[in-house]
Amino acid sequence: MNRVAPSTQICPHYHKAIELIGRRWTGAILGAMLAGETRYTDIIQAVPGLSDRLLSERLKELEAEGIVVRHVHPDTPVRIEYCLTAKGRDLGEVTDAVSAWAHRWSAEGVSGQENHSSLTPDP
Amino acid sequence: MNRVAPSTQICPHYHKAIELIGRRWTGAILGAMLAGETRYTDIIQAVPGLSDRLLSERLKELEAEGIVVRHVHPDTPVRIEYCLTAKGRDLGEVTDAVSAWAHRWSAEGVSGQENHSSLTPDP
Repeated sequence: MNRVAPSTQICPHYHKAIELIGRRWTGAILGAMLAGETRYTDIIQAVPGLSDRLLSERLKELEAEGIVVRHVHPDTPVRIEYCLTAKGRDLGEVTDAVSAWAHRWSAEGVSGQENHSSLTPDP
Repeated sequence: MNRVAPSTQICPHYHKAIELIGRRWTGAILGAMLAGETRYTDIIQAVPGLSDRLLSERLKELEAEGIVVRHVHPDTPVRIEYCLTAKGRDLGEVTDAVSAWAHRWSAEGVSGQENHSSLTPDP
């Protein structure tokens, strides 16, 4: 049977974006930064299980994508901040949509798998 | 220096959701299904580079999450459809937000890396 191919293929911009944002740890790091965290140690603390090495890797990837910028303040000791660019801050709509979906369906999605009662949900 | 820990940690529902949706190929498969594809071969054709094995794996994962349901129609030959559940269709807001972000920033994000001119962007 010769079936007609679908008229559209997945947009490569969409495909690249969703896998960038959803890469392991990246979504959580972005969530912490969108919530206002700018210091390495604060981001680590906001994301349970995230290692130093992976945070460093992910921040470099996000810098390469123009989503994060690293600011070095010449204080003593040197103070380093990781800030979202306009492109990064613009991801707030995406993370809000994910968060809203996750909460609408969380009773089904997480219950019975793990006990997360010690973690504070986003408002 | 004793810094105060951030007042909130990343919500585990959000964290799980963004990594589920953004897992390699999953975002693209969901995009194709939200665009109306229900047949295995049509989903494969809508996602360039997706292999049989990975589509099968991802569909099973999405079934386990209650996002996709497999319908077997007892025709001759047997016809199988993969449909989004209400939980899956509800992801449309997320994929719309990702798509909108990707297009707002695509000139910067994709240009110069690969030539995607043969692919049809989402409307």
